[in-house]
Amino acid sequence: MNIFEEVESNVRSYCRSFPDTFLSAKGSIIKAASGKPYIDFFAGAGALNYGHNHEHIKRRLIEYIESDGIIHSLDMYTVAKEQFLHSFRLTTLNKLNYPYKVQFCGPTGTNAVEAAIKLARKVTKRAGIFAFMGSFHGMSLGSLSITSNNYHRQAAGIPLSNVTFIPYPGDIYDINSIDYIEKILQDDHSGVDKPAAIVVETIQAEGGINIAPIDWLQALSEICKKHEILLICDEVQVGCGRTGSFFSFEEAGIVPDLVILSKSISGYGLPMALLLIKEQYDIWAPGEHNGTFRGNQLAFVAATAALELWDSKQFQEVARENSSLIKTVFEKKFVTLDPEIQVRGKGMIWGIDFSGIPIKEIAYEVRDICFSNGLIVECVGRKDTVVKILPPLTIEQGVLRQGLEILADSIKMALKRVVAHKRG
Amino acid sequence: MNIFEEVESNVRSYCRSFPDTFLSAKGSIIKAASGKPYIDFFAGAGALNYGHNHEHIKRRLIEYIESDGIIHSLDMYTVAKEQFLHSFRLTTLNKLNYPYKVQFCGPTGTNAVEAAIKLARKVTKRAGIFAFMGSFHGMSLGSLSITSNNYHRQAAGIPLSNVTFIPYPGDIYDINSIDYIEKILQDDHSGVDKPAAIVVETIQAEGGINIAPIDWLQALSEICKKHEILLICDEVQVGCGRTGSFFSFEEAGIVPDLVILSKSISGYGLPMALLLIKEQYDIWAPGEHNGTFRGNQLAFVAATAALELWDSKQFQEVARENSSLIKTVFEKKFVTLDPEIQVRGKGMIWGIDFSGIPIKEIAYEVRDICFSNGLIVECVGRKDTVVKILPPLTIEQGVLRQGLEILADSIKMALKRVVAHKRG
Amino acid sequence: MNIFEEVESNVRSYCRSFPDTFLSAKGSIIKAASGKPYIDFFAGAGALNYGHNHEHIKRRLIEYIESDGIIHSLDMYTVAKEQFLHSFRLTTLNKLNYPYKVQFCGPTGTNAVEAAIKLARKVTKRAGIFAFMGSFHGMSLGSLSITSNNYHRQAAGIPLSNVTFIPYPGDIYDINSIDYIEKILQDDHSGVDKPAAIVVETIQAEGGINIAPIDWLQALSEICKKHEILLICDEVQVGCGRTGSFFSFEEAGIVPDLVILSKSISGYGLPMALLLIKEQYDIWAPGEHNGTFRGNQLAFVAATAALELWDSKQFQEVARENSSLIKTVFEKKFVTLDPEIQVRGKGMIWGIDFSGIPIKEIAYEVRDICFSNGLIVECVGRKDTVVKILPPLTIEQGVLRQGLEILADSIKMALKRVVAHKRG
Amino acid sequence: MNIFEEVESNVRSYCRSFPDTFLSAKGSIIKAASGKPYIDFFAGAGALNYGHNHEHIKRRLIEYIESDGIIHSLDMYTVAKEQFLHSFRLTTLNKLNYPYKVQFCGPTGTNAVEAAIKLARKVTKRAGIFAFMGSFHGMSLGSLSITSNNYHRQAAGIPLSNVTFIPYPGDIYDINSIDYIEKILQDDHSGVDKPAAIVVETIQAEGGINIAPIDWLQALSEICKKHEILLICDEVQVGCGRTGSFFSFEEAGIVPDLVILSKSISGYGLPMALLLIKEQYDIWAPGEHNGTFRGNQLAFVAATAALELWDSKQFQEVARENSSLIKTVFEKKFVTLDPEIQVRGKGMIWGIDFSGIPIKEIAYEVRDICFSNGLIVECVGRKDTVVKILPPLTIEQGVLRQGLEILADSIKMALKRVVAHKRG
Repeated sequence: MNIFEEVESNVRSYCRSFPDTFLSAKGSIIKAASGKPYIDFFAGAGALNYGHNHEHIKRRLIEYIESDGIIHSLDMYTVAKEQFLHSFRLTTLNKLNYPYKVQFCGPTGTNAVEAAIKLARKVTKRAGIFAFMGSFHGMSLGSLSITSNNYHRQAAGIPLSNVTFIPYPGDIYDINSIDYIEKILQDDHSGVDKPAAIVVETIQAEGGINIAPIDWLQALSEICKKHEILLICDEVQVGCGRTGSFFSFEEAGIVPDLVILSKSISGYGLPMALLLIKEQYDIWAPGEHNGTFRGNQLAFVAATAALELWDSKQFQEVARENSSLIKTVFEKKFVTLDPEIQVRGKGMIWGIDFSGIPIKEIAYEVRDICFSNGLIVECVGRKDTVVKILPPLTIEQGVLRQGLEILADSIKMALKRVVAHKRG
Repeated sequence: MNIFEEVESNVRSYCRSFPDTFLSAKGSIIKAASGKPYIDFFAGAGALNYGHNHEHIKRRLIEYIESDGIIHSLDMYTVAKEQFLHSFRLTTLNKLNYPYKVQFCGPTGTNAVEAAIKLARKVTKRAGIFAFMGSFHGMSLGSLSITSNNYHRQAAGIPLSNVTFIPYPGDIYDINSIDYIEKILQDDHSGVDKPAAIVVETIQAEGGINIAPIDWLQALSEICKKHEILLICDEVQVGCGRTGSFFSFEEAGIVPDLVILSKSISGYGLPMALLLIKEQYDIWAPGEHNGTFRGNQLAFVAATAALELWDSKQFQEVARENSSLIKTVFEKKFVTLDPEIQVRGKGMIWGIDFSGIPIKEIAYEVRDICFSNGLIVECVGRKDTVVKILPPLTIEQGVLRQGLEILADSIKMALKRVVAHKRG
Repeated sequence: MNIFEEVESNVRSYCRSFPDTFLSAKGSIIKAASGKPYIDFFAGAGALNYGHNHEHIKRRLIEYIESDGIIHSLDMYTVAKEQFLHSFRLTTLNKLNYPYKVQFCGPTGTNAVEAAIKLARKVTKRAGIFAFMGSFHGMSLGSLSITSNNYHRQAAGIPLSNVTFIPYPGDIYDINSIDYIEKILQDDHSGVDKPAAIVVETIQAEGGINIAPIDWLQALSEICKKHEILLICDEVQVGCGRTGSFFSFEEAGIVPDLVILSKSISGYGLPMALLLIKEQYDIWAPGEHNGTFRGNQLAFVAATAALELWDSKQFQEVARENSSLIKTVFEKKFVTLDPEIQVRGKGMIWGIDFSGIPIKEIAYEVRDICFSNGLIVECVGRKDTVVKILPPLTIEQGVLRQGLEILADSIKMALKRVVAHKRG
Repeated sequence: MNIFEEVESNVRSYCRSFPDTFLSAKGSIIKAASGKPYIDFFAGAGALNYGHNHEHIKRRLIEYIESDGIIHSLDMYTVAKEQFLHSFRLTTLNKLNYPYKVQFCGPTGTNAVEAAIKLARKVTKRAGIFAFMGSFHGMSLGSLSITSNNYHRQAAGIPLSNVTFIPYPGDIYDINSIDYIEKILQDDHSGVDKPAAIVVETIQAEGGINIAPIDWLQALSEICKKHEILLICDEVQVGCGRTGSFFSFEEAGIVPDLVILSKSISGYGLPMALLLIKEQYDIWAPGEHNGTFRGNQLAFVAATAALELWDSKQFQEVARENSSLIKTVFEKKFVTLDPEIQVRGKGMIWGIDFSGIPIKEIAYEVRDICFSNGLIVECVGRKDTVVKILPPLTIEQGVLRQGLEILADSIKMALKRVVAHKRG
């Protein structure tokens, strides 16, 4: 028994899927204490869009620490925050004429989700939230109430309320959710009150790489406007460039009323979370939502440096090429491995859906074989049947190819076992 | 209008009390961009027990970053976490034979509070929580439900439920809360169900430096045992040495079932939070409570270095001397400034209670005069009438004295204005 | 201003639709104080299946009162209750081998609904209830939470929780609700917990005469069995013979786990309500659900007499003939009045759906013209666009024909106004 | 096994305390089917203030039924309701200048309680209710949430919320509840939001005959006015003359904002319930709270006749003499039977508190011995240790004396057993 098993709570989880002890990381490679390298197609569940320990950001962090830049100061004004705000405004808000105010929340996605639903209720004086089946928004009580995963929900120990779940495009329910929402809202016998907000992920990552069509997002935005419901976009996993644009909803041309950013916003894996608030809805009284770490200065420094990267042509070109490569491999190669395999993805987030194969644990097998072959990938979605890949946007093509090779081989091997199993 | 007013949400708060822009910090001094130094008796609301940017910790952080130590890896096993666990076990758990497992929560106090009440409900299959009037536990929905501050509660936008508030020792209610709890639990017509847990702060910091007597804590622990209710101790603000011992409840000899640590646990102001769980209650299933930043590696590195500091004789001696000095100044000097002034405190957390003075804004005046004189102190408690001081434990005696001088002068000046006001 | 307007609360409602003061009633006719007679196609919203003041029941009531039979005794054993139980067992339970225990609830439908959902939660240790869009179950907090009418829901003043609304067959949502429920229950990312119970009306009366197909009811029953969810049938409005059989679910051959009876069970319009409980689910502890009027002895006496009527061939023949006449008139005549008119019904409950006609108030006009012509009918359903008729089962054919004539004429006149309005 | 045990749900309760089958009743005597008479000191838990089957009311009922007076008509205008309203206004409202509108609720106390808290929330736009420890308000979800009895509460199957329980005068908590409420409301860290309403019984009947002092009621009324909280008085058990005046709060000179009447309002044990609403708070929209039996015409007829009785000098004199006799017997005689016995009461509601005697079941023994000796009394209060008596106000002095004799003898016998038990 190691120290983790002795001292850490049973709640620990990823260490069970990836049973090694890690020491260092660079770019797309993480290294175990033993020296064994792994290609990282997991990337901190989307927190490492710029790869591990990017040199540009790293230098800034070290400079800042060396200079005794202020590290902790709650939400006081600091030079680090000032620079981040300038940069964020310039790089993202102004470029697209986004009318957002920035709230620095406690540095976790769930905290910004909590702030968002609280603010939506305050603005509208309504209690309910519409969320989508397949959604994941976090583990604190408010976020958990709008998270669809029943495994997580039952851990609440109390009934979770003030939420209505709606089917998501392309899922098992085969319901036109826009029509459904419209009818619910117009029907005086629906039993469902008009909500304060609809919370949406443009791509459900934990839910199994379910991708909302552009026109669906547009219709959702329209329906919210029509009924004066706030549209909240949870960009925690697929924002910050994962889908190709900084915000995943850009392509749809919509402007959500509230936007939640976390994970890759700091660019270095440091805890940080933002809530973007359309100006007219910024009705917070001072300090109504607070938190000790809502000004993580190191994260501001890293985030400012990361935005410089983001803003470079070269960065975006690399990401585009990588996306293109993955798309090709998935759509040309992976789907040929078995007729029951489905692939879905966009930009640098892709999934291989094994739910059509009647062997329950096949996705776990793929993940485990990958890991023993030096590649880290995660299982997500209904019954964990989807293998998700989230490589750093910055991954070198060679490493990317190598990772995709390992993945292909692992799928083949897992499928073979299935065949063996069937015959057996 | 500066960039903050232009872009940051109206929710920002401390920047209103301390209107300057800060650049760097060292020990007990923070410096504005203008170069103006401030003595820091606020210390990140308790997140900076070791002062700003302590050299010992700083060196470790820089080394770690330089070596490309892994920064983000969710809850995978890492060498940084391993070292922290060894150190934490050695320095705190084993020394006092504490039977705790460690859960790494999302790196904010509120997240660990959420985990604690969730686990208590899971263990006991009960829904209710008893919390205390004057309490502060956080802003996410579950934590907010057990936070007593009505300003924060009303921002929830929905009724907050599954909590019963109980008067705290020495507060305005003058109720023997132990007797009251016992009667509620035994009375078959109390209307109050047996709770899953009682959540307590040994000192209510935000509540106004209200200090629970040792025997009261012991009685509370007994009543929990007797009725099989989990005792949760929220050590976020007063743990990690603030009161003299590492855990603030040590002196009472009690062993809470769940303990929440955050703020100063990383020693450097980096986001980090722990939930300590008595072994028999560690019934989490893997991943039932998760979060992207639940393994903040930089914080592990800092925390390990901080525990080394903590474990040194010299450190503890400095803290003791500082505590002793504050106690003397408060109890000998401050109370003589006005008959209506009350002081309360322990270790390195003290408060000056101005609620007896019939000028509503006097504590705010003290804070503002202090600030213009180069000292940062906060107002807390009922109607913000208590000036709280939380200097770094490591503050140099000279700086401490200087800060206390400024504080004394500011009180005098504020009181003079009151007199002027009264005569006027 | 009359005494009602002076003293009665503004909440009064039917008096606004039927503005006269009533004195006496017999069979299908009620008389105003002025002597004006009205044909009653409303029948106490289903409480008067045996007509007003049926002689057989009336004699028994007078005898009982004259003999000083005990009128009030909470839930003590009485001869009146004994006789009712014998009769109810013989006439309904034994005949169809129904395995029910009988709970005498407070004498209103909503009270029995409250008891049912409470018991379902107690049995299953689950919190949620599935109810249907279009449903009506009552006004007390538990019943209201599962009532779909938003006008009533918003009056609660607090969010209503622990319920999920599902589309009902044939309604505007066009969703296969059986499939939908099955998917929700199997999907580990539905966000919806397995409920304690599904509450259904076989015909939604207040919801607009929406009729569940037989095979849908059977499938619903199967899905409940499969997932160990209690099936609760709310028979308040369409039970006690309204649809042709004593229980409206008989035709489907299903045996709900809990059955709610009220309205016509006493046969004379006296307050009474029963909860039928499958034997294995009768896990109430003594007095866990109680109420002062849970033994309305006069209602027991009336109900016993009413069951004698029910059990006679002659009674059932009359009802059948009446049903047949209504069906013919509705399906042959009413539908020809306008291509947009739809009719729906079964047994002695029928509706004329005007929702296809783009004049909002047309159903109200029909009701009002009927009333001035001496016929009482009610508007129900989405936006009150359905004219509902619920004549006594015992209505004389002549009166029934006369009422249907008035109804036809009133529809014609209302439609004429629509045409006038359109041209205008 | 009798038919009740075979067919009636296990929830039945009073039949277990009073194991006989009852047939008829007159005045203060009820008779079993066997012919055995019992003196009734239970009186339908307060529903029979005029005794069983009072001739005056009986005649009116029979006349009304004989004349085919309308029995059921939901909330349409009827002559029977008109006459009741005239009479109620004349006899109660106008006499004391009470500014109430009358809402006819579903004919059970719990339904009127539900209407009251719903309306209070609607008026104030607040969610919480303050209720008192020891309270009983009913079994439907809203009423149950403000009922203090934990046995009943746990049967809800879900957490009951939006209520804060406050100690009641003279109970085990020894807290000045007026001060406590005032402090909670003024304290910005109480954790308790300002409620929509405070619901009070002037005497907690089910809670153990706990009597609120006059000045306490006045202070409660003042505090409600000051903070714009609605005061709701639940008069279900002790209204309609039980304490000497028609409303139990008259003596205190207070005018609650909402008043709930049920039980004895119909005078004959027929289901009926009223909510009285101060004119300015009658903001119901039509039909917002409804129910099939909200116009129980027979009850209106009975209630009108009962108010005539109430309004007679002779009636009130009898009640006064009876009260006086009980008071003397309780305070002079019963307290001498054992030093640990306490008595409490007012008007015609009195209790003998055995909680000081360390034999748990003594009150049950008293009740059971009484029953076998032909007297019906109930156990109420904490752990059912209080024997409650509620004779009809109209009881003949001879029967009253006889009942009190039986009660005295039963107490002596029960105490003897205790002594035997102690010696044994």
